[in-house]
Amino acid sequence: MDERREQLIAVALELFSRRPPEEVSIDDIAAAAGASRPLVYHYFPGKQALYEESLRRAGRELAGRFEEPAEGPLSDRLHRVMGRYLDFVQSHGPGFAALLRGGSVAASAGTSAVIDEVRQAAADQILAHLAVPVPSPGLRLTVRAWIANAEITSLEWLAERSVPLEELQLHLVQEFVAALTLTAAREPALAAELAGFFAGERPDGPTGLLLRDLAALFAVPGVADSLAALATGPATTD
Amino acid sequence: MDERREQLIAVALELFSRRPPEEVSIDDIAAAAGASRPLVYHYFPGKQALYEESLRRAGRELAGRFEEPAEGPLSDRLHRVMGRYLDFVQSHGPGFAALLRGGSVAASAGTSAVIDEVRQAAADQILAHLAVPVPSPGLRLTVRAWIANAEITSLEWLAERSVPLEELQLHLVQEFVAALTLTAAREPALAAELAGFFAGERPDGPTGLLLRDLAALFAVPGVADSLAALATGPATTD
Repeated sequence: MDERREQLIAVALELFSRRPPEEVSIDDIAAAAGASRPLVYHYFPGKQALYEESLRRAGRELAGRFEEPAEGPLSDRLHRVMGRYLDFVQSHGPGFAALLRGGSVAASAGTSAVIDEVRQAAADQILAHLAVPVPSPGLRLTVRAWIANAEITSLEWLAERSVPLEELQLHLVQEFVAALTLTAAREPALAAELAGFFAGERPDGPTGLLLRDLAALFAVPGVADSLAALATGPATTD
Repeated sequence: MDERREQLIAVALELFSRRPPEEVSIDDIAAAAGASRPLVYHYFPGKQALYEESLRRAGRELAGRFEEPAEGPLSDRLHRVMGRYLDFVQSHGPGFAALLRGGSVAASAGTSAVIDEVRQAAADQILAHLAVPVPSPGLRLTVRAWIANAEITSLEWLAERSVPLEELQLHLVQEFVAALTLTAAREPALAAELAGFFAGERPDGPTGLLLRDLAALFAVPGVADSLAALATGPATTD
């Protein structure tokens, strides 16, 4: 491992985290690294190669943050992972946004591959924690759709910061619990797994708090009555 | 309006719908349009300009499909819109996938702008139908995240086609209902709106069917007991 090369990548990653790629030049990177322009070109054919390499490092670091011991309530595990994920989002904000918003001149098959790998690592971790022997296509889809939800929500949060980060962290976990419940509602084979999942949760964890919020919502005048009328209405005749 | 130009755009859109942009050449478009290569270049500086123009037309057509009269239960309206959306996805499959998967050589600020406009049109329509006087940042985020969910779910469906399209259509609508309910659970100001929403729904509509599926899920041994224990557990003391 060449230390000078590693240092250039670290400096580039730092700059690409703070600004979109089109606003970072080889000269900026050379200056920040205390290196000459020819030295940077000695290691990398151009800015794109350096961008992609620093992105690969960032992707590897982010994927590492998804790793979590298989211990304790599932929603608490996901809550800890999301804390580390959102910390990454916050510290790499502008670069993260430029990368995922697309349409960047630096977007390429290489940058897409990094994004896909990180998404795949996230999905693999979640499915491993759910410990369903053979995840159904529906469950896989739920997991992937929730990951897209987490991405878009993070991007919006970076742009507006309209809620505290801790709320976002909790809401994303609760949305996963809701998405899992909906999937189980249409896949009877998942229902027993869901019972085990709920049995392992804590009243003060993300799932318990969600249930309490839902109970309060259903106590709002009109909500419970409308729901009861709907749920006991005429069955579909086809 | 120049008819020859319009015809070239229509032919290009047809080809770009069936193949990723890098697999469509100016010669392919000229041949399919019964035009010469120089004629195509007379109207468009190159393939990218023709791609972006045909994309703008497709985006406009898709946005038009989101329009729906403000009549009847909300989830039925969304169900009809999703039917038209999924019909579009199906008929423009490979092009839709290439566009949204990113990393295409044809991705540009122009193509990103089209995607953003279509997403914005979808969000505007949904918020208009919800008829909340001033949508909160949380509600806007819920709508945008659900749109991302619909996109990723459509992409996965195009790749695998693992469920009938009608199921996908129903599930997406039900996921929106669930996401709206979760948002109302954390935003008391939305709770009264939600009561009105549920009051207008049909027992055999997407929301009624969802409630019946959830009721069946909660009847699975263990699920209701675990939920009750969680919901009535010790309150948070902080």
